[in-house]
Amino acid sequence: MSVLLLSSENVRDCAEMSDVIPAVEDAFAAYERGTAQMPAKSYIDLIEYNGDFRAMPAYMDAGEWDAAGIKWVNVHPDNPDDHGLPTVMGTMIYSDPDTALPLAIMDGTELTMKRTGAAAAVATDYLAVEGATSLGIIGAGVQSYTQVQAISEIRPISEIVVSDPDDKRAQAFVDHFEDEFSVRKGDIAEAASCDVLSTVTPVRDPIVSREDLGDHTHVNAMGADAEGKQELADEILLEAKLVIDDHAQTTHSGEINVPYSEGTIVDDDIYGDLGEIVVGNKDGRIEDDSITVFDSTGLAIQDVAAARVTYRAAREAEKGAEFDLLGTDR
Amino acid sequence: MSVLLLSSENVRDCAEMSDVIPAVEDAFAAYERGTAQMPAKSYIDLIEYNGDFRAMPAYMDAGEWDAAGIKWVNVHPDNPDDHGLPTVMGTMIYSDPDTALPLAIMDGTELTMKRTGAAAAVATDYLAVEGATSLGIIGAGVQSYTQVQAISEIRPISEIVVSDPDDKRAQAFVDHFEDEFSVRKGDIAEAASCDVLSTVTPVRDPIVSREDLGDHTHVNAMGADAEGKQELADEILLEAKLVIDDHAQTTHSGEINVPYSEGTIVDDDIYGDLGEIVVGNKDGRIEDDSITVFDSTGLAIQDVAAARVTYRAAREAEKGAEFDLLGTDR
Repeated sequence: MSVLLLSSENVRDCAEMSDVIPAVEDAFAAYERGTAQMPAKSYIDLIEYNGDFRAMPAYMDAGEWDAAGIKWVNVHPDNPDDHGLPTVMGTMIYSDPDTALPLAIMDGTELTMKRTGAAAAVATDYLAVEGATSLGIIGAGVQSYTQVQAISEIRPISEIVVSDPDDKRAQAFVDHFEDEFSVRKGDIAEAASCDVLSTVTPVRDPIVSREDLGDHTHVNAMGADAEGKQELADEILLEAKLVIDDHAQTTHSGEINVPYSEGTIVDDDIYGDLGEIVVGNKDGRIEDDSITVFDSTGLAIQDVAAARVTYRAAREAEKGAEFDLLGTDR
Repeated sequence: MSVLLLSSENVRDCAEMSDVIPAVEDAFAAYERGTAQMPAKSYIDLIEYNGDFRAMPAYMDAGEWDAAGIKWVNVHPDNPDDHGLPTVMGTMIYSDPDTALPLAIMDGTELTMKRTGAAAAVATDYLAVEGATSLGIIGAGVQSYTQVQAISEIRPISEIVVSDPDDKRAQAFVDHFEDEFSVRKGDIAEAASCDVLSTVTPVRDPIVSREDLGDHTHVNAMGADAEGKQELADEILLEAKLVIDDHAQTTHSGEINVPYSEGTIVDDDIYGDLGEIVVGNKDGRIEDDSITVFDSTGLAIQDVAAARVTYRAAREAEKGAEFDLLGTDR
């Protein structure tokens, strides 16, 4: 059996957000129920190249389906300037757990954006006000687009405020979405006062203060992915109903890693894992909640769940290329 | 830049043993010198499918060159009977450490055989008698072929004795090599009395006894790759100059794992790591050594070293297929 090769374009075209979101929701549920396996990420530090590689293997059993695979992903901050390449790239091997045959090898960069957007949508579905119509985006980089695509799937978003110090990047975002939404550029406080806010920046000093947020804003804190990064002021994290994707990852490299390491935020300040809410062990938003925060670091099970959706859609649409990698066709 | 796809056939054709052996030797040296990174293998256990996945990421700097990548490999013992597929399959992503671009994605099954043969050759080069002409092979499965190809690269092997209870498999081995060597089937003692012996079986109870070995036989114990497996009698391991590839792996799942866990073999019984011998920190064979044993479990750095050789040879020969996985050609 040949392996199906899916380029970034194939992944972009085939993986429908309306399919990725429920698959990622199933991944959080499987993780909570203990039917997922996700060994700790393995890191290779490349000091001489100012970069690293991360291996993210996972298996998940959602009951009606299961999925396995590995994402091999890097962070090379000098890539854009030195090589004209993205900082983060990824390659995903999606495997059949029954036989271990690699079913597909696909671009993991596009996949990461999709599954990250989907995680924000799942959190937003459980934590934002029901009739949320306004969405703030802080940071108009590549990850911001899938935030909009995903969150607008589960809430009747009509108005978007985007904030980015790079006006060209903010304008490109506006141009991209202006046919679909009422979208405008604004400052951080304007974006942060929306019903839902996604922060998608690499900052190391918080840029959103408590006063910036609306009365009932739900925040998806997506940016922090390494020690030392933080987008939201400590007081937001302390006041909000604070939901995380994974305790080990988020305390190590998520939005709360700095205040957690300093002891400003302790385990009692964390309301729970997204999986606990998804399976119904804890409530999502309740009437009198004011602000809520989802701290997302990105889990390997999200990748395998999204890879499955992508693979099935690509097979259905007859997209991608075939290659007899293992010589099993003979 | 497109990724180069290399099928099992491409890997078989392109990776010359005469290039793989020195690359694997460099890998052992880099590991000893501390210029390699090799996180512990991550396991995913698939109890319902009687199988597992293993993630093997690595980076190594050999001084004149460096290499990075990951092998995603499985062990599914029911595959041959249930699906007509190999028990072990693998997919290797070979990456540029500078930019993290995936340079090649290649069949890891064929690659594993090559780099395993190469490890045996490196050990044989340092531990077998200089003029070794006879080679015994116990176990005529897929891994046995690359043992012959590799070891005959570094010693003037003319005579081969193969031992396997499956006569068809032993005969296929004889047929394959009879033009090149004086090759015959024999019992375990006949194979084990050769100058060099490679054991390549999955047995759980030792099949080679001390009396079977010749006066100065060097043994490559290649078969044990999981807890509970052992090919050589304890007394061989206790008497021999015992060399291992990696302490953590070999005490966990290598040839010595059973006697080590029982306390029959202790750290003082281990002469050293192959890397220590390669870099000259410890002697290889010295005149009056009698029997020597190399306990091989297989290291991720062997895979990246072999992948580099394969990639370069394939580019040179213009083999394989190109695919713009990451969309970086646009």
